[in-house]
Amino acid sequence: MGLLDPKRTVQELKDLRARTADENGAWRVAWTDTWLEARAWMREKTDALGLETHMDAAGNVWSTLPGESDTELLIGGHLDSVPGGGWLDGALNVLAGLEVVRRIKEEHGRPPVTVRLVDWADEEGARFGRSLLGSSAAGGTLVPDEERHRKDADGVLLTDALRRCGVELDRMNEAHAELRNAGAYLELHIEQGPVLLDLDLPLGVVLGTFGVERHAIGFRGQAAHSGSTPMNRRRDAFLAAGKMSQEIYRITDELGGVCTIGSCVTRPGIVTSVVAECDITLDQRHLDRAALTAMYERAVAASERFAAEGDVEVAWDTIWRIDPMPFHPELIELADEAVKEAVGVSHRLPSGPLHDAAEVARAGVPTVMLFVQSLHGISHNKIEDTEEEHLEASVVALDRLAEKTMAWLAGGQRG
Amino acid sequence: MGLLDPKRTVQELKDLRARTADENGAWRVAWTDTWLEARAWMREKTDALGLETHMDAAGNVWSTLPGESDTELLIGGHLDSVPGGGWLDGALNVLAGLEVVRRIKEEHGRPPVTVRLVDWADEEGARFGRSLLGSSAAGGTLVPDEERHRKDADGVLLTDALRRCGVELDRMNEAHAELRNAGAYLELHIEQGPVLLDLDLPLGVVLGTFGVERHAIGFRGQAAHSGSTPMNRRRDAFLAAGKMSQEIYRITDELGGVCTIGSCVTRPGIVTSVVAECDITLDQRHLDRAALTAMYERAVAASERFAAEGDVEVAWDTIWRIDPMPFHPELIELADEAVKEAVGVSHRLPSGPLHDAAEVARAGVPTVMLFVQSLHGISHNKIEDTEEEHLEASVVALDRLAEKTMAWLAGGQRG
Repeated sequence: MGLLDPKRTVQELKDLRARTADENGAWRVAWTDTWLEARAWMREKTDALGLETHMDAAGNVWSTLPGESDTELLIGGHLDSVPGGGWLDGALNVLAGLEVVRRIKEEHGRPPVTVRLVDWADEEGARFGRSLLGSSAAGGTLVPDEERHRKDADGVLLTDALRRCGVELDRMNEAHAELRNAGAYLELHIEQGPVLLDLDLPLGVVLGTFGVERHAIGFRGQAAHSGSTPMNRRRDAFLAAGKMSQEIYRITDELGGVCTIGSCVTRPGIVTSVVAECDITLDQRHLDRAALTAMYERAVAASERFAAEGDVEVAWDTIWRIDPMPFHPELIELADEAVKEAVGVSHRLPSGPLHDAAEVARAGVPTVMLFVQSLHGISHNKIEDTEEEHLEASVVALDRLAEKTMAWLAGGQRG
Repeated sequence: MGLLDPKRTVQELKDLRARTADENGAWRVAWTDTWLEARAWMREKTDALGLETHMDAAGNVWSTLPGESDTELLIGGHLDSVPGGGWLDGALNVLAGLEVVRRIKEEHGRPPVTVRLVDWADEEGARFGRSLLGSSAAGGTLVPDEERHRKDADGVLLTDALRRCGVELDRMNEAHAELRNAGAYLELHIEQGPVLLDLDLPLGVVLGTFGVERHAIGFRGQAAHSGSTPMNRRRDAFLAAGKMSQEIYRITDELGGVCTIGSCVTRPGIVTSVVAECDITLDQRHLDRAALTAMYERAVAASERFAAEGDVEVAWDTIWRIDPMPFHPELIELADEAVKEAVGVSHRLPSGPLHDAAEVARAGVPTVMLFVQSLHGISHNKIEDTEEEHLEASVVALDRLAEKTMAWLAGGQRG
């Protein structure tokens, strides 16, 4: 596979950064001029490769290399970024995919299966607050009426911003047709967390995306004077909420996954009163549906126990829920082999953040992702970075995985 | 003591309420017209009793019944209330004191010691945020320069509001002279807490006012994505703060007193991020100086342990500190006898809230207070209330205490 040039991918990422970022980071926010500029720059590259390229009804851009079979290998990413974002999140996937398609074309001419590169529209949801917009339309889970009201910070309607780019909200679900012949979907992404960094490993195989249970928990006790109220007479809402801070670590010790209390608000919230009302948020994530449910149920039970102990009331309100999306077991094996071939050692890990791959997998397409190490474990920030050596290795791994997946598809092995 | 008429006190409290309260509570806020009206109404009563009455340089009103000796028995309270306050807080003390002075005058004509009734100015600090204003001037702890900047919610300067009532901030400390011959100070007050209510006791003897250690505690960890950050990599400021919620109950279990975390603020405070910064307030109170110091030191040590456990930083900032003010041991004994004579059973308890009595005691005057049960354990509210039977018993107990204290003073027993 000497035809693959991973250094070219790193150079193209730098070219893209030079065009679409400044000292505050990348500005390829979906449906903006800078994003359209990035897509036009990308279009030149796929045109130069002789691929057929078109935008679907949801704004996703597809570039196709026809193969011996209609069955399609999809490789995807997204060029859009958050405001002041990093140079790799999303763009690495698209440009590594481009390099892989180049190699396949050069090596195979007409490969055993059709190969398609997709640049998903608006993965980040940074401007209108709806992430995975294009891929959810293709996956078939987008409900236009739920998005119609959305406006950006300047009051611009989502529908108007989309129309300016040639997309009609009510027709977006037509993009689902693009997945008709999809046989497998591959996505490379930076980890956006510290797991591979801590293990000192360049690459990992993603087992799936976490399901999420996200709730607001309100404890209701009674305000009382800090000087005149004996401890045994208090109905202290903060005491119950504070106990939850440790409980979530006990839950994850036992069940795995992650739990986060991200916000705590106290009322009246003054130094001379026992807390009458304490509201916290709880975000729980797990790759396994049963374990996620157990995490949630255990948190509910604990909150009720703490409430009873402190003679306060507790109420739960759901903010958001989504099911875990495990990736395809055979593709996970192939990805493991590809990573080992590229860098000698592999590691399997779940993805906390959601990705377009989750929408494709939810639509029934066998899917897997590769993660490359993030320096600082940080993304959505101008300091987002990865060692160039690791970026190059990630292109190699994606390429090996693509080759293995083509063989898997050509062998008729559909999951 | 058939000359004492406790029912008259209850009737006078109702008369005062009719003049200075509406359906939202009492409005005798210091330095306002309603407060001046209450004082004018009171002045008629002390004049009718033939007492010499004058306002001192701090706005406190003194009514004197001369006795055989210059040594003075002081009985005090305050007519001012918080906005929308209760009918008893402060006013009970003044009107019960009036009834006691009436009884003494009728019984003794010229009592063995001089007896003075004082209506302290601005105990509540409701309008300008400085409580115990008049009594701290008399006690000698007022620093005019620290109060000069104060304004009310409408921007009116404290100095202007005082001047309108005939008080000059810079001359307020001259009121200290009023304590020159003070031999003892007695104050009756509603409890403003639930201790006597829980014990089903009408009256209690106050051991002193709590000292206070009041601090802001800031934990500093690191923001991190709720989905991609493993639990063992987190530097969770809320985890450390949450542990403090239980620690304060362990501290009071061991050392007594009361501890309150009244406020918790989290940053960034969003559902998808580990808490980077968590600020809580801690209010600790104890009657014993050494125990209060131990409470504070134990809380500091715990916060440092929790910070170390979670790899976060912690910093403490002092908001306010005041020493405990224990009352006079011999007067506590006399008060105990008086309460037993009035209602058969007594109970000793500390005071969480501060009172004018603390300022008088701090000035070196032997002091004690009586508490009468509060219904609901609540004050500073229109629902503040006490059984009339208990109010009447409290007047009897104050009267017995006054008689015992006069005898104690006449016997030359100064503490």
